[in-house]
Amino acid sequence: MNQLSFLDHLKTPRTARGRKTQAKIIQAAEIEFGERGYHEASITSITQRAKVALGTFYVYFESKEELFRALVIYMGKLARATIAEKIGKAPDRITAERRGIEAFIEFTRANKNNYRIIGEAQFVAEDAYREYYRVFAEAYRDNLKMSAEKGEIEAGHEEERAWALIGMNVFLGMNYGLWDETKSASEIAAAVGDLITYGLKGSKGS
Amino acid sequence: MNQLSFLDHLKTPRTARGRKTQAKIIQAAEIEFGERGYHEASITSITQRAKVALGTFYVYFESKEELFRALVIYMGKLARATIAEKIGKAPDRITAERRGIEAFIEFTRANKNNYRIIGEAQFVAEDAYREYYRVFAEAYRDNLKMSAEKGEIEAGHEEERAWALIGMNVFLGMNYGLWDETKSASEIAAAVGDLITYGLKGSKGS
Repeated sequence: MNQLSFLDHLKTPRTARGRKTQAKIIQAAEIEFGERGYHEASITSITQRAKVALGTFYVYFESKEELFRALVIYMGKLARATIAEKIGKAPDRITAERRGIEAFIEFTRANKNNYRIIGEAQFVAEDAYREYYRVFAEAYRDNLKMSAEKGEIEAGHEEERAWALIGMNVFLGMNYGLWDETKSASEIAAAVGDLITYGLKGSKGS
Repeated sequence: MNQLSFLDHLKTPRTARGRKTQAKIIQAAEIEFGERGYHEASITSITQRAKVALGTFYVYFESKEELFRALVIYMGKLARATIAEKIGKAPDRITAERRGIEAFIEFTRANKNNYRIIGEAQFVAEDAYREYYRVFAEAYRDNLKMSAEKGEIEAGHEEERAWALIGMNVFLGMNYGLWDETKSASEIAAAVGDLITYGLKGSKGS
């Protein structure tokens, strides 16, 4: 998985070296914003973490806020790519949902700054926060529609069901990813398996 | 519904007048913290909104942080009481869940500051944030267990299902309570009705 492709929304540096530098700054920003929060975070500290000169920062980003917004988009793409990779060629939507929950909990455990950064976006860059979830919801809705067309799940209300399922994932990720790691991610996914399986199949039965 | 009883966790003023003053400060804090955020919020402005003297504030609260924590607890109790009232004497868990979603979306539409305040708690008072959801999750888990014992829903994994259902509620509330009010709360609850009904009944069928 080429993480650099997640930076498509920014001015793309022309050289591979430039793209690498831009990515290093974003990755340093993830640690800085995650550990210190937006207001305490400093560009100087980010460039030190990234091991680049302060002047270099401004080649790629105009401000701390622009970098933060870029990071929110980056984290959304990273989460979706990680989940998509794990879902892989799931034979059907039900299997995909369960693998998705497992992947999201694992992602949260491996990226503990994610919730703080996205949560803080609600205050620092509310439009980026909404966009973060809007993109998730649209992709989810389209997946549910495709699965309904194939007859794997009940059809209808895909948008509302997408928001409900995202919420499930986010809260399972929050509790079992950040606060309670006593069970494995696959145990958690299995525990809510029936809720999802029967819930999505609905009157189509099992 | 007596909102004053939500303040049980604080030093309870001895007089009815004192309890009323304390409640006025909390309600003013809801507006101040919701509109300006924790860091910009000021005790002076809160006392002005509440129409009480600055000195009066310190009779009831030690600091801005103590008031904020009290507010988070208050909002949790208010949300649960509002939902419980709406669920009322629902004949079974499935009906209760659907009424609960409807009530929560309506609560969000009527209390738009709720998400900002709870969201900010994640940064300002993380323990209060965790406690806020832990209390919800425990009550939810116990309700699911009781319903499973009555045979209304499938038994098992009540804790995990509780977190999943809370997430559903929170995200439906966020999208349809704050961002998209084109449909009524009851339409949204109906749209996810099968997901919940079949999901909770599981292999017990319908």
